[in-house]
Amino acid sequence: MKKLFVIKIGGNVIDDAQSLDAFLQRVAQIDTPVILVHGGGKIATRIGDQLGIESKYIDGRRITDDGTIDLVTMVYGGLINKKIVAALQGYNCNALGITGADGNLVPAVKRPVKSIDYGWVGDVQQTALKAAQWAALLEAGFVPVLAPLTHDGKGHMLNTNADTMASAVSVCLGALYNVRLVYCFEKKGILRDIGQEDSVISHLDKENYNSLKAAGKLFAGILPKLDNAFAAIDAGVEEVLIGHADDLLQNTGEQTTGTLITA
Amino acid sequence: MKKLFVIKIGGNVIDDAQSLDAFLQRVAQIDTPVILVHGGGKIATRIGDQLGIESKYIDGRRITDDGTIDLVTMVYGGLINKKIVAALQGYNCNALGITGADGNLVPAVKRPVKSIDYGWVGDVQQTALKAAQWAALLEAGFVPVLAPLTHDGKGHMLNTNADTMASAVSVCLGALYNVRLVYCFEKKGILRDIGQEDSVISHLDKENYNSLKAAGKLFAGILPKLDNAFAAIDAGVEEVLIGHADDLLQNTGEQTTGTLITA
Repeated sequence: MKKLFVIKIGGNVIDDAQSLDAFLQRVAQIDTPVILVHGGGKIATRIGDQLGIESKYIDGRRITDDGTIDLVTMVYGGLINKKIVAALQGYNCNALGITGADGNLVPAVKRPVKSIDYGWVGDVQQTALKAAQWAALLEAGFVPVLAPLTHDGKGHMLNTNADTMASAVSVCLGALYNVRLVYCFEKKGILRDIGQEDSVISHLDKENYNSLKAAGKLFAGILPKLDNAFAAIDAGVEEVLIGHADDLLQNTGEQTTGTLITA
Repeated sequence: MKKLFVIKIGGNVIDDAQSLDAFLQRVAQIDTPVILVHGGGKIATRIGDQLGIESKYIDGRRITDDGTIDLVTMVYGGLINKKIVAALQGYNCNALGITGADGNLVPAVKRPVKSIDYGWVGDVQQTALKAAQWAALLEAGFVPVLAPLTHDGKGHMLNTNADTMASAVSVCLGALYNVRLVYCFEKKGILRDIGQEDSVISHLDKENYNSLKAAGKLFAGILPKLDNAFAAIDAGVEEVLIGHADDLLQNTGEQTTGTLITA
């Protein structure tokens, strides 16, 4: 099977114009088919403040009300997405900016109201993703750039977690491609010693993950991310890589500097 | 050749939520491949006012400065484009929202500074459009929804005239499809008598256009639109239809109620 990189970047890269530009230059250098998934960033909060749209929280959870969904649709789906597209196009990378609503490429449902009403938030319907539609874009030579938004099938946009979307697209395309899902963050990888930046665990498989976890040798905060990584692998993703945004070219190559996660 | 409708809607439909929704229900009923091109709307001005981004004019021409290009990228490329996409998806129409920057689908250059510096405004490079890229989207079953934005090839977005983009896409696809370019506006068609709403000229070809024009029987304000329509036809578009947004289904059928323009 052909190789495909699904690359996720978050706010820490997006918020810094220089880091973002350097990162996108790297993305443009990758030969293999790529899908880039981006998160939000502080710019949404800044523009929201100017527009008088407050961030609302219930029990520490962000709520997406009417004003907020319009705000993130503008900022994530418009401003950030198209800035990335224009930059990549400037580096001769044929970026095509979309949200999960476009082409219904990431089907979702509005999160059901239980104890908390999250508002206009989408939960991805993994089994409803259609690999053929994604493959049509990739085969046409486009580099999809996916903003963290979906729709509810009833005419409304939904705010959606970018990590989850990256994972869902990777799982879906695992049927057609040999997928490496690359999460870019601000550390070189999963660290053996949280105080030592160079103590990267270069490889994790289920066996050594479970033994490290059982021995309490992993930082608790990273466990959900790793559980999600192994869930993606169980669902058909070949490899998950967690590494630094600066190391993208190494981490899309053979000599990875981040943490490579395999079955 | 297969039939294709390129449909342009402007601010008058976009600004009215009910008209827009009714219009999009009609779009969703069209069987033939469709590309929908939308303009801006008053909402950009309203959000700009809230953000302290003023509309600037020189000699009556709107200037797109740094603040304005970010504003229209958010509003046209984000808010309006995705509202349309979510609505169409809700009506089971597989809309895919893009700008001309996405996939470099509408190549443009920043308008050269002569007597006026228009700022971040794009002039479409007609001959650089690639029919195969558009056809790939249509063949995959997507209904492209195009926002009036392009990019300069150097990492920057550009504000671009929606009528021109609709025409450029129609001309480009004229090589592969039998294209009817449908301009939706607030009148039933080109009127023989500007005071008589039902005096629609049902058909114009070059011969009767030239004789009506020579006899001074056409409202001067409509002449540039008609000249552009005939230019599109000379460049390979089969038909141009100018009609009311409410009459979209008639005007994408055989019994048109607007003004059908042919060679």
